[in-house]
Amino acid sequence: MPVYQAPLRDYQFVLNELLNVYQQDGLKGFDEIDTDLVSAILQGMADFSTNILLPLNPVGDLEGCRLEGGQVKTPTGFKGAYEQFVENGWATLTSDSEYGGQGLPSVVGLFILEITAATNMSFGMYPGLTHGAYFAIHTHGSDELKQKYLEKLGCGEWTGTMNLTESHAGTDLALLRAKALPVGEGQYAITGEKIFISSGDHDMTDNIVHLVLARLPDAPAGVKGISLFAVPKYLINDDGSLGEANQLSATGLEHKMGLRGNSTCVMLFDGAIGELVGQPHEGLRAMFTMMNHSRLGVGIQGLGVSDIAYQNALIYAKDRIQGRALSGPKDSDKAADPILVHGDVRRMLLAQKTFNEGTRGLMGQQSLWLDTSKRHSNPGKAKEAAALAAFFTPVVKGFVTDQAFKACVDAQQVYGGHGYIHEWGMEQFVRDLRISMIYEGTNGVQALDLVGRKLLSDKGAALNLWSGMVKQLIGDNQSNTAMQPYLSGLIHAAGDLEKATHFIAGAADKSPDMIGAASMPYLQLTGITALAWIWVRAASTALQALEAGTQETVFYQSKLKSAQFYMDYWAVQTSSLRLQIEASSQDIVDFDEELF
Amino acid sequence: MPVYQAPLRDYQFVLNELLNVYQQDGLKGFDEIDTDLVSAILQGMADFSTNILLPLNPVGDLEGCRLEGGQVKTPTGFKGAYEQFVENGWATLTSDSEYGGQGLPSVVGLFILEITAATNMSFGMYPGLTHGAYFAIHTHGSDELKQKYLEKLGCGEWTGTMNLTESHAGTDLALLRAKALPVGEGQYAITGEKIFISSGDHDMTDNIVHLVLARLPDAPAGVKGISLFAVPKYLINDDGSLGEANQLSATGLEHKMGLRGNSTCVMLFDGAIGELVGQPHEGLRAMFTMMNHSRLGVGIQGLGVSDIAYQNALIYAKDRIQGRALSGPKDSDKAADPILVHGDVRRMLLAQKTFNEGTRGLMGQQSLWLDTSKRHSNPGKAKEAAALAAFFTPVVKGFVTDQAFKACVDAQQVYGGHGYIHEWGMEQFVRDLRISMIYEGTNGVQALDLVGRKLLSDKGAALNLWSGMVKQLIGDNQSNTAMQPYLSGLIHAAGDLEKATHFIAGAADKSPDMIGAASMPYLQLTGITALAWIWVRAASTALQALEAGTQETVFYQSKLKSAQFYMDYWAVQTSSLRLQIEASSQDIVDFDEELF
Repeated sequence: MPVYQAPLRDYQFVLNELLNVYQQDGLKGFDEIDTDLVSAILQGMADFSTNILLPLNPVGDLEGCRLEGGQVKTPTGFKGAYEQFVENGWATLTSDSEYGGQGLPSVVGLFILEITAATNMSFGMYPGLTHGAYFAIHTHGSDELKQKYLEKLGCGEWTGTMNLTESHAGTDLALLRAKALPVGEGQYAITGEKIFISSGDHDMTDNIVHLVLARLPDAPAGVKGISLFAVPKYLINDDGSLGEANQLSATGLEHKMGLRGNSTCVMLFDGAIGELVGQPHEGLRAMFTMMNHSRLGVGIQGLGVSDIAYQNALIYAKDRIQGRALSGPKDSDKAADPILVHGDVRRMLLAQKTFNEGTRGLMGQQSLWLDTSKRHSNPGKAKEAAALAAFFTPVVKGFVTDQAFKACVDAQQVYGGHGYIHEWGMEQFVRDLRISMIYEGTNGVQALDLVGRKLLSDKGAALNLWSGMVKQLIGDNQSNTAMQPYLSGLIHAAGDLEKATHFIAGAADKSPDMIGAASMPYLQLTGITALAWIWVRAASTALQALEAGTQETVFYQSKLKSAQFYMDYWAVQTSSLRLQIEASSQDIVDFDEELF
Repeated sequence: MPVYQAPLRDYQFVLNELLNVYQQDGLKGFDEIDTDLVSAILQGMADFSTNILLPLNPVGDLEGCRLEGGQVKTPTGFKGAYEQFVENGWATLTSDSEYGGQGLPSVVGLFILEITAATNMSFGMYPGLTHGAYFAIHTHGSDELKQKYLEKLGCGEWTGTMNLTESHAGTDLALLRAKALPVGEGQYAITGEKIFISSGDHDMTDNIVHLVLARLPDAPAGVKGISLFAVPKYLINDDGSLGEANQLSATGLEHKMGLRGNSTCVMLFDGAIGELVGQPHEGLRAMFTMMNHSRLGVGIQGLGVSDIAYQNALIYAKDRIQGRALSGPKDSDKAADPILVHGDVRRMLLAQKTFNEGTRGLMGQQSLWLDTSKRHSNPGKAKEAAALAAFFTPVVKGFVTDQAFKACVDAQQVYGGHGYIHEWGMEQFVRDLRISMIYEGTNGVQALDLVGRKLLSDKGAALNLWSGMVKQLIGDNQSNTAMQPYLSGLIHAAGDLEKATHFIAGAADKSPDMIGAASMPYLQLTGITALAWIWVRAASTALQALEAGTQETVFYQSKLKSAQFYMDYWAVQTSSLRLQIEASSQDIVDFDEELF
């Protein structure tokens, strides 16, 4: 069975060295955070996850969820684990202190999500989706709605869900049909069927708050006629106690490739009573403000699962003896060398390691931008951070989960035949993580969001902002000889990104469809360049620590060597991505349907 | 549930236009083949697979195999389907006519394997592994052994297995411990445990012939002390009738990610009686002569599953309406456009289509080289073909299954959330095919085989032979203006391959471990270049057909446009692969173990 060590040292690196989270000018309260408390929280979560969540991961996979008498039963042990999770306060870390939360920086919550996803992705979905519901009500709900729901959701006493998809309406929400009829006193009767509802029903909490997209009777057609409603499983009495069951139920459970410990439900709303969240017909806007957070949440699932897969593949590669190094035996006392001596095993592991660590930095940066966008005292800085966070949202979702999945497949590959067998746990990581490339908007939708909405719609303003930061970093380090090996990779990647952007801007005028054709290579190109930017910063930090005579030479040497490998293996991939964009976009558009 | 159309038109293209299989000088008998009969055979297999094997594919996945009282029960319907498969003669197509076979070209057998793998990969493993056992005995067995086994194996009345792996000895067969004690009369008592034995036991035939690697008492250590034995499940009396049960049994079934309709057994040999195949201590050599065939067999599984996944993704993309084309509505009568209008959906489908068709050509070529190596009247030509087949063996196994798996993941992606749900069948393709990257030597082993054994050991002779063919093709088409768009991609890829080869030759002298580090990008680079070579030939053929005024304009236009896309999307990937080889190989070797 897989083991796990939460990357606590790397968390400190990201928090204190790469991002300096606690020394952000203009972020009120961040400089007063008890950093020892944060360390203790992360350590506590690491222990809980390793001891409780990790052993439950194969249980969830084998047992799955069951639908009995209209109620979903979660796998053995999930309910108890969830109670501990809530009791220990891990659900409240980043919740608003006004509603009983602890108000910690998002990046701390991000790492909690990473640890949870690494050890039990299915379990992590129950509290994870609650964040989305909490955030929707927090941002768009009336005061009454906030009073009704936020404290219970914020502390995890209740969970939340997102009900968007219908069988004929996934990516295209304009097609959705669920209806909402006003029944007086600000209440609505919701009717319709929703599919693929994660955590749609379960037995872990007394109540579940469904956020449901539906159409009011006077709704215009398309996405401009969608409203958002909060619809509880059990109605809530005026005194806050639970009343009768609402007219809704889980009518089916999906049989999935993985993520089997999470209940993916078909939900039937049959005149269920709910209340509007935000304004009529502005449900899509309410959903979109959640996207930056929920897509970051999916990205961090990618990182978590990729990291635990890497950790186990590394252990296996050190332990499994098979064959000899090409340069001659490395461990003559044994019948064979550990497979870590083989170049291709090392290649796979280094590709995983450098992706994981770089991604952790980028996602931390993204969390900090999100906090800055909401909490910075200077509105200009907040706006800039919002633009950057919006730009990188499809990157931390789409690029990260694509590459994290590949990393898991490589980690499984290190195990040879044992990677294909259930008992070793590696194949579950691959099956579980596969969904991350699909939900919260497929990665193709992410790519289109990046190119269409985030790049072209604002005429490249967000990209220019970030490019300025990249150029600044290059300029700051240009005269530092020791930094040259790392800089050159970033310069190479950023150059390809610039050329590809230029191509896309030109193509947009010629043929809009070419934008879509180019979008996925462009997403990958952007992601690889972003990690190169992170790795240059990590290398610079590591060099300074080594020059300052740190005792932790192994940690910082590893950062330097990893940065070098990243540039030489990952960053060089931008060459072909740029060529793909420039050469194949027109072919893709021109390919007549009958020729497929 | 998935549907399937065997690519019969493309088979004719490969047989008659790309390879001219029936007009090969020096291949005795090929020019006398009844081509209508071949067409009828392929059509018959297509019908059988679509009607019988395809509906059984999810049955095998859901039921799996069961071990009851030491006997494996295959899923419902498998036994009946196997009986039909044998009755219809599909097991004998390429078997030697001396032993009741039909002696058809390997490429015909290859297409039968493709259809079988596409519709039911688990089922295909039962007859598939039989080919390997048949071939081992055919090549290395004594006349007595041939008389005993070949006819029964060749017609599928019995099946065969390969027993190599032990729990501590997978890639490294030097470590294996199974023992063989001589017991007189040319018989041996085999003792040991083998794992991961595909089709190790089942209920579909009266007997199963296990080919087992074991050590004789006087065996030297390592791979030079391994012998190969034929060990039947039921002993065979002198009159050919079946005698008592041999001392062997399946003691366990593996719980796997996929391929659940095939029985993957732990086999215990407890003094089981067997006979030597080939010479004592030369078992590894006997295994190696099978590798060219068995690895091609794994590669064709990749193509088969990738193709059925593509076919269904294309149907879904035409059928599923969601969103509008960026350039404006394409189907205004409907509420949305089919998702085939979206550039990124087209990109995924074209990547699959061009990979599949190119691979079909390459694997057909490989089959023809294998036939030529064994049957050509000119020993020099036979030797050349043998060298080419050996060089491309790791390519058609490792490159093809790596890319086929990615293609399946992309096909699944086209389905969005429905791709993750069992009932649509796409996720099974991904789970089933994942093993193809691992068994018959992991793809990392393939990469090392290519660089170490096939490239460097013969000082590039085989590669030079093929490079000569590539240069010849380029030269032949250089003055043809219409061919320039396709040629340039091949020239680009071949140039990168030449540079990468030069780097590896240099690195071999400096640091042998760097060869391993560079091996996987080199394998991919070689594979991509090989398909570019096939696509130039396909484009040339298509141009000629169009110039000659063919009625099938759609078929040939599709070939031309596909060739163009291949060059602009696939062939450009060699740039980054070359950079990876040149830049990261040293980093990989230099990365100290403690820094991981």
